Amino acid sequence: MTRYNAPLKDMQFLLHDVLKISSSDIPGYADLDEGFTGAVLEEAGKLARDVLEPLNAVGDRTGCVLENGVVRTPPGFKAAFDQLREGGWTALDCDPDYGGQGLPYLMGTAVGEIMVSANMALNMYQGLTHGAYSAIHVHGTDAQKAIYLPNMISCRWTGTMNLTEPHCGTDLGLMRTKAEPQGDGSYKITGTKIFISAGEHDMAENIIHLVLAKAPGGGEGTKGISLFIVPKFLVNDDGSLGTRNAVAVGKIEDKMGIHGNATCVMNYDGAVGWLLGDLHKGMRAMFTMMNEARLGVGLQGYAVAEAAYQNALDYARDRLQGRNVTGAKNPSGPADPLIVHPDIRRNLMDQKSFVEGARALTFWAANLIDRGHRMSDSAAEGLVSLMIPVIKGFQTDKGFDMAVQAQQIWGGHGYIEDNGVSQFVRDARIAQIYEGANGVQAMDLVGRKLAQDGGKHVMAFFEMVKVEVKAQEADPRMAGFAGSLKVASKQLQTAAMFFMNNAMKNPNAALSGSYDFMHLMGHVCMGLMWTRMAHAAHVALDEGRGDADYLRNKITTGRYYMSRHLPACTMHLARIESGAEPVMALAAEAF
Amino acid sequence: MTRYNAPLKDMQFLLHDVLKISSSDIPGYADLDEGFTGAVLEEAGKLARDVLEPLNAVGDRTGCVLENGVVRTPPGFKAAFDQLREGGWTALDCDPDYGGQGLPYLMGTAVGEIMVSANMALNMYQGLTHGAYSAIHVHGTDAQKAIYLPNMISCRWTGTMNLTEPHCGTDLGLMRTKAEPQGDGSYKITGTKIFISAGEHDMAENIIHLVLAKAPGGGEGTKGISLFIVPKFLVNDDGSLGTRNAVAVGKIEDKMGIHGNATCVMNYDGAVGWLLGDLHKGMRAMFTMMNEARLGVGLQGYAVAEAAYQNALDYARDRLQGRNVTGAKNPSGPADPLIVHPDIRRNLMDQKSFVEGARALTFWAANLIDRGHRMSDSAAEGLVSLMIPVIKGFQTDKGFDMAVQAQQIWGGHGYIEDNGVSQFVRDARIAQIYEGANGVQAMDLVGRKLAQDGGKHVMAFFEMVKVEVKAQEADPRMAGFAGSLKVASKQLQTAAMFFMNNAMKNPNAALSGSYDFMHLMGHVCMGLMWTRMAHAAHVALDEGRGDADYLRNKITTGRYYMSRHLPACTMHLARIESGAEPVMALAAEAF
Repeated sequence: MTRYNAPLKDMQFLLHDVLKISSSDIPGYADLDEGFTGAVLEEAGKLARDVLEPLNAVGDRTGCVLENGVVRTPPGFKAAFDQLREGGWTALDCDPDYGGQGLPYLMGTAVGEIMVSANMALNMYQGLTHGAYSAIHVHGTDAQKAIYLPNMISCRWTGTMNLTEPHCGTDLGLMRTKAEPQGDGSYKITGTKIFISAGEHDMAENIIHLVLAKAPGGGEGTKGISLFIVPKFLVNDDGSLGTRNAVAVGKIEDKMGIHGNATCVMNYDGAVGWLLGDLHKGMRAMFTMMNEARLGVGLQGYAVAEAAYQNALDYARDRLQGRNVTGAKNPSGPADPLIVHPDIRRNLMDQKSFVEGARALTFWAANLIDRGHRMSDSAAEGLVSLMIPVIKGFQTDKGFDMAVQAQQIWGGHGYIEDNGVSQFVRDARIAQIYEGANGVQAMDLVGRKLAQDGGKHVMAFFEMVKVEVKAQEADPRMAGFAGSLKVASKQLQTAAMFFMNNAMKNPNAALSGSYDFMHLMGHVCMGLMWTRMAHAAHVALDEGRGDADYLRNKITTGRYYMSRHLPACTMHLARIESGAEPVMALAAEAF
Repeated sequence: MTRYNAPLKDMQFLLHDVLKISSSDIPGYADLDEGFTGAVLEEAGKLARDVLEPLNAVGDRTGCVLENGVVRTPPGFKAAFDQLREGGWTALDCDPDYGGQGLPYLMGTAVGEIMVSANMALNMYQGLTHGAYSAIHVHGTDAQKAIYLPNMISCRWTGTMNLTEPHCGTDLGLMRTKAEPQGDGSYKITGTKIFISAGEHDMAENIIHLVLAKAPGGGEGTKGISLFIVPKFLVNDDGSLGTRNAVAVGKIEDKMGIHGNATCVMNYDGAVGWLLGDLHKGMRAMFTMMNEARLGVGLQGYAVAEAAYQNALDYARDRLQGRNVTGAKNPSGPADPLIVHPDIRRNLMDQKSFVEGARALTFWAANLIDRGHRMSDSAAEGLVSLMIPVIKGFQTDKGFDMAVQAQQIWGGHGYIEDNGVSQFVRDARIAQIYEGANGVQAMDLVGRKLAQDGGKHVMAFFEMVKVEVKAQEADPRMAGFAGSLKVASKQLQTAAMFFMNNAMKNPNAALSGSYDFMHLMGHVCMGLMWTRMAHAAHVALDEGRGDADYLRNKITTGRYYMSRHLPACTMHLARIESGAEPVMALAAEAF
């Protein structure tokens, strides 16, 4: 009942008119001309539309089944996963030394959006593998890389990340899983991990678990934690698969959504593992992957909203109900389509302007990640590290809200599972929770990222916005954008100042406003993106390039964002400035 | 895994300190002294806690099953429904002439909240019956009342409302179900109705369907619609059950939530029906029940949020994770409870201050309904009719948001169905959709209610707020409340003025801002309620009455609402004042 078409034109506009990638100085970007990126995205779009999307509802309805220690993925998943593998889609931005295609992370991000929109649950199998690949790529020994990377790049072997235990999620210092050194370089891992996405399934020959555990001598809390490679099947020296390791799935969870992905309880019962990276530096090893993992979840936020939007739009065009208040638009029919009604428009414009803004922000961040990795640009790395909690927290919150709004357009029919739009809401919900719940993102932003490197990165961000405002306010066509962005950015600065002035006396003053700050900053980022996009659209129109209708609609959509979304900044600032007192006044017993 | 305790103290405070019901001049209110209402609510609370709530998860997990035309409700539902019946809970505010207990609607509302919080899906069986009872009570002939009301009051027979058809929901003018007069006073009803809650089930001896259908001669659109009584089993003259009528359930829907309630496709195949009320005045007959039905849905919005809040609170107190930033609160334990963290507080305070405000607003509206019915007070009726779309739309939107926030406190565990908190989110979602989707509520508010009776009721509302502000601003303890309320109320008036000045030129200017207006007005209503509650708490404290801790916490919670929720008004006004242009600028094809 649902459908998905990749937003190719919008992606191409971002890559070539906004980010101007093929004239970038980032190594590897010069090859990314319009023809090339267009061809890659078009192929990805076909696979998404024809193979992945039709399985999205199947995955939701069927779910994964655990029987006798074996997890069966939904019918069709394995064949689709094979197509992903065989088409090289899992190798896109991986290291050519190990069989990857070496494309920039930005290209992986654009293709990733398409895959997630089409089928979030299925795409997670490769997404988790990519995360584990990155960890081994950065922290592994040459021998480890040689053994694991080629098979993980091809997704013949998939990967997992094992952090959470029943009694600890955010607070990993409470971890109980133990690693005992065996004297031969290996460890025996014992403990229970929960919420392990793709922990067990029938689509790969081997599963490479990356497991956080405590090895002796590391001290209390997170200091004692190390990261281990624990394969499901041990790997012989010749690369063939050996004995089954002592790791087993204990249970798969019955969740609100992403039913097509097996969320497992994993029991490690003296399983053989090998240290990845330095002993007792497991948290640091995990954190090096955090930016990409969180960007990936922020991407899920708007990618699912994009799919929901497309299906809400179809319904708004097809469903005949009521008459346009200023005169019938479909006089020969029994009623006008929903899309004539202003409140339906408001709803659709909310979705459209959010999704396009979030896509721009995500692509820009991916571009910064490439700049950081490929040019060792620490300013880019600092900026993206500031941006990551915003992208993860703001985009998944808004992405969920927009999926809910999309469902609302379907009325009662949106509440019926057969129609498929409820799945978008249920799937999108997890992105607000996993990979650091959004409250934790807000704490990371306000408690760590703002002050990081002496506040250098947030100052650079403010300066960047200021430069953009200055550049645009002279152009009368852009003055509205520049003016709105300026106001919002001042509000963000005022909020940051409030934290600086109050947090020393009372840390709760900052932490009480952290969630609102994350959203306030999200809107400013989106305002910046919309200003850049509108400017790029004007330039393209002036130069007579591109699809003039598309470009004009882009500017109109941006105007909507600036006038209808950005006013939230005033609200967030007022909440922040009310300080800790209202939040903390009630005694814990008084709730 | 979940639990529910009725908020008896809060309800008693509203009834006796805020609404002062036992000193009211409304007939029937004098009997409602503190002892009596306390005893009723306490009994309801026990039934809810011990019988209804334990079945809530059962209903969700098991759902209803259709086999051979029979719908099986979840295990335990029938026995619980029997307890509701036998305890007289279904008869509470019904007419004593037909076996009801004659209590005010307000008491039915308070008890209703308790039942809905404990088990929304189960309570719908009696909720729908109550709606059908009201319709027959107001529009039925003496003979119809004598036949149907006693059995519906006792819920031996349940009731349904049949409006929606596959191709028409909001736009009932497109209705196809036909009623053919048989010359003997009866009609033959033919057509298909969908989304019929409790349309078929195994908990009652008979089901009385109220069906909207088109009888000959009524003209086009909604004008031709009449309302019919169509019993599942025809009723003999002696009141015994006769032949099975030609109405059958075609399918039950697989929904996102409220699985314990059977949502049916009902096929009428020349079923025998009798006119209820006047021929071709079916819409009017439906609308007389609309206020109560929509108030009931607005109640569901915050009642489910209350249950979600209680369970989020338990988790925030029990789950040990991280340390309080200003010093450990549980130094002997491995970590502090979640509730020490400011962002968790913010989340809980959001929920608590919303739920208590919404309860006050709902009780106040129920009080106005009693005043309207029992004293024929047309000012009260006008005011409540203005308030209804706000209560339905705002409270269900916020109630859903708060259920989502409650789930967020549970982190990953909230996404796992076994823990039961995801159900609150999935159940709460329907309240935004049914009984007029919230966009339709906003349209009703701005398009009809504001201008109703020459704008008399909205002017009365503004005057009432003004009087409250005046009365409170002199008291230094209340000046903060009065000041915030004044600002918000001015913003609401500015928005209304914007509509008046622009809507004549362009109706889209008002309709584009209708959704924001509904939320803006919701906040002003909540601000008014919180001002009244804080004042009442101060009075009780001054007089040394009541639980001083409870009263002080009430004021503190109100301060939170005023400083953290009310700033949304500025945002809504800015959106409204941006007008129709950004909303309508894009051509329908350009989305």
